[in-house]
Amino acid sequence: MIVVVTPNPAVDVTYRVDEQRVGRTQRVLDVARRPGGKGVNVARVLHAAGVPSRCVLPLGGAPGAWLAAALDVPATTVALSGETRTTVTVVDDVAHPTMFGEPGPRVTAAEWDALVAAVAADAADADALVVSGSLPRDADPAGVGRLIGAATGLTVADVSGPALLAAADAGADVCKPNREELLAATGAAGEADGAADLLARGAGTVVVSRGVDGLAAHTRDAVLTVPAVPGVRGNATGAGDAATAGLVLALTRGLTLRAALGCAAAFGAAAVLRPTAGEVDHRALTGFLTDLPLELPLDPTRSPA
Amino acid sequence: MIVVVTPNPAVDVTYRVDEQRVGRTQRVLDVARRPGGKGVNVARVLHAAGVPSRCVLPLGGAPGAWLAAALDVPATTVALSGETRTTVTVVDDVAHPTMFGEPGPRVTAAEWDALVAAVAADAADADALVVSGSLPRDADPAGVGRLIGAATGLTVADVSGPALLAAADAGADVCKPNREELLAATGAAGEADGAADLLARGAGTVVVSRGVDGLAAHTRDAVLTVPAVPGVRGNATGAGDAATAGLVLALTRGLTLRAALGCAAAFGAAAVLRPTAGEVDHRALTGFLTDLPLELPLDPTRSPA
Repeated sequence: MIVVVTPNPAVDVTYRVDEQRVGRTQRVLDVARRPGGKGVNVARVLHAAGVPSRCVLPLGGAPGAWLAAALDVPATTVALSGETRTTVTVVDDVAHPTMFGEPGPRVTAAEWDALVAAVAADAADADALVVSGSLPRDADPAGVGRLIGAATGLTVADVSGPALLAAADAGADVCKPNREELLAATGAAGEADGAADLLARGAGTVVVSRGVDGLAAHTRDAVLTVPAVPGVRGNATGAGDAATAGLVLALTRGLTLRAALGCAAAFGAAAVLRPTAGEVDHRALTGFLTDLPLELPLDPTRSPA
Repeated sequence: MIVVVTPNPAVDVTYRVDEQRVGRTQRVLDVARRPGGKGVNVARVLHAAGVPSRCVLPLGGAPGAWLAAALDVPATTVALSGETRTTVTVVDDVAHPTMFGEPGPRVTAAEWDALVAAVAADAADADALVVSGSLPRDADPAGVGRLIGAATGLTVADVSGPALLAAADAGADVCKPNREELLAATGAAGEADGAADLLARGAGTVVVSRGVDGLAAHTRDAVLTVPAVPGVRGNATGAGDAATAGLVLALTRGLTLRAALGCAAAFGAAAVLRPTAGEVDHRALTGFLTDLPLELPLDPTRSPA
């Protein structure tokens, strides 16, 4: 069992319009509404790959109720007095998407305590805990350390900013920022220095996603790298979350760190082939995983429409 | 009692951003979420002015549940299988607002029957029924005729397109389009011809709102006009709905048609002074109504913030 906590989930709304124009009334041609937040994507990828997993989510208000009802993975929810945030992404066939991100609810100290307790309960028998995504508005970054500390199995943190430092301070087994997040959080000039900072703070391993340049794992002893799967084009949104899913899955199955990086790259590439974050192309993934000692009940019908 | 039916209500969301830019991720600095739809605005203006009134609304999904809970006027709700639409308006201090309007739910035949039954029940003892705003997606415009036919008192239709023609066909006592809506629905080249079309179909009176040029009432015998209240600047959104509230209020109090037009103009102007649709400035309204034989329990503390 892999437990994934999403401290700041969202209702992700996508509006398709004819052509984005500032200052106009735009008829929305098509509305897609789905549960969002990085951890939700990680859990959905794991669940679809047949990996026992469970979401832990603080949720509030009508958007929170909607998200809980719409979620297609097992979940433990913690009630918030505030309202779960919504993100609105506007797309057309012309310009880049425009994303509007609500600030989201403040989480009270008592609500954070309840979240930590829920994580502790769910993670007690779990192989791994993943903490993924942004923190609620004005949340103390140290709260991430409490989530990490509530787990008994492997801990993976895909967080950014001060929360990334807090996760390292709390001794997360794996910190998994992308390169930009690593440099921004540590203030380091280069990836090696940034990774060294997190390792010095207490992180077990620092896995850095480098986009089209693949992934690197920094330990106290070595740096391992794997290239990205070549020739894959599509929607990069959510690819990092799929990579996190592949990484934690491989590590909980006892694969080597190098093989786990390969698994992360394979999941990331298979996510690029799907138009929707939180999904992977299982037919392609099966091919990408050929050389890895990993058996999954993948369903090849989960391929691009 | 004035009953106001809103066939296609909405959750109106306003996002304030630093500067609207297509193709960017924009942090939402401030979120306002309120019950919307033209009839909701009419009912809120009446209710705040101390006029007994009741909303009838078809509502569905999480947005519908939110709207029902947030509504600050008495309401009868009819459950929809579809989800109540949301509108998102993005504002900054630079450009015109950008509005994204969802298409909204389809309403089944059985659901429309339930709406007509709810209107008939609420309107049975009522002085007036107002039908206001757009129809749900793919709705038969003749359905507006059924709503009008369900009332026993005065009927007022502030609708557009084929629904405006259907309201006239059904013999609405007052059709209240704005000038553009009148010309678009009837295909007439001028206001007099358009009004004559609606009167010939069966409308009792056609009240045309002309924006800064005031209001006109067309009957079979005459055309009455009143100017807009001069020197009023502000937010015109919802001013037409406030004018409808003033009009129906005056007519149910037995005022002459000319006085009712003056009351409509006063309410419209008092709405322009408020930043939010569905509200009027009561202090200003008290002044605008000085010459009208209308006593209202207005609360002068409802003035601009």
